Amino acid sequence: MADTHFTFTPIGRVRSPFKRPEDIPPPAFAPPGFFNRARGELRVFKKYEAALKDTESFSHLIVIFAFHKSRGFKLQTVPPGQVELRGLFATRSPHRPNALGLTVVRVLGRRGTVIRVAGLDIVDATPILDIKPLTERDLPARVRTGWIKE
Amino acid sequence: MADTHFTFTPIGRVRSPFKRPEDIPPPAFAPPGFFNRARGELRVFKKYEAALKDTESFSHLIVIFAFHKSRGFKLQTVPPGQVELRGLFATRSPHRPNALGLTVVRVLGRRGTVIRVAGLDIVDATPILDIKPLTERDLPARVRTGWIKE
Repeated sequence: MADTHFTFTPIGRVRSPFKRPEDIPPPAFAPPGFFNRARGELRVFKKYEAALKDTESFSHLIVIFAFHKSRGFKLQTVPPGQVELRGLFATRSPHRPNALGLTVVRVLGRRGTVIRVAGLDIVDATPILDIKPLTERDLPARVRTGWIKE
Repeated sequence: MADTHFTFTPIGRVRSPFKRPEDIPPPAFAPPGFFNRARGELRVFKKYEAALKDTESFSHLIVIFAFHKSRGFKLQTVPPGQVELRGLFATRSPHRPNALGLTVVRVLGRRGTVIRVAGLDIVDATPILDIKPLTERDLPARVRTGWIKE
């Protein structure tokens, strides 16, 4: 079959205050509002500039990126601050069969190929694979978040 | 650099009532509740079964998939029902530099490697690249959705 492998090439890179993975606290350990205050940039390559039109009219964007520092994975893992083994697909661990990450960022503004954002939880120079607008259909009214204590 | 290409392999496939892309109405044209009623399955390959533990404890999952029928893209596009050209990254068009799709589905239940879901808007046999739990951090309180009329 032709669709057993998919190869993707970055459309840009993240500029983040977090230089190393160790600089990013697990959500369970981060002070309130910590990530909201984490500001940075989505720096998209020049050839895609025209595709960024209108992105700044959305309050939030979904960034799909490669966990480029991820190596290997386990099928079950104990999330930071937890004691029980959880299925990998019930966690946001960066160590996954396909090391794809997803984060929702708040748009502060755009100048050309640079979108300033808040709410970053990813490391500097992370390769961006896609940017999508966050829409109402991504926001269910009532959500139950399993093992995660809010 | 080592991180200019990323190759991903499906972890499973979607079982959907929509057999062809033409069977899926653009959100702007779908009757109210149309996608909520669209039920199907995430069929994950046997070797990843242990990684699905706890997924059923979440009300919603994020599915990242390959738009495997997508060919090529334009930097700007007129969304269905619209008249103005919009930047591609301000749309959810399947025709993207990296043909990655994202959809939020409601979990109905799981039996082994099969997760029954509602809220599908993707075509049957779509290759699944990743499954993640939807968490509070993905749900901003106030959202502005740009050119999209809700």
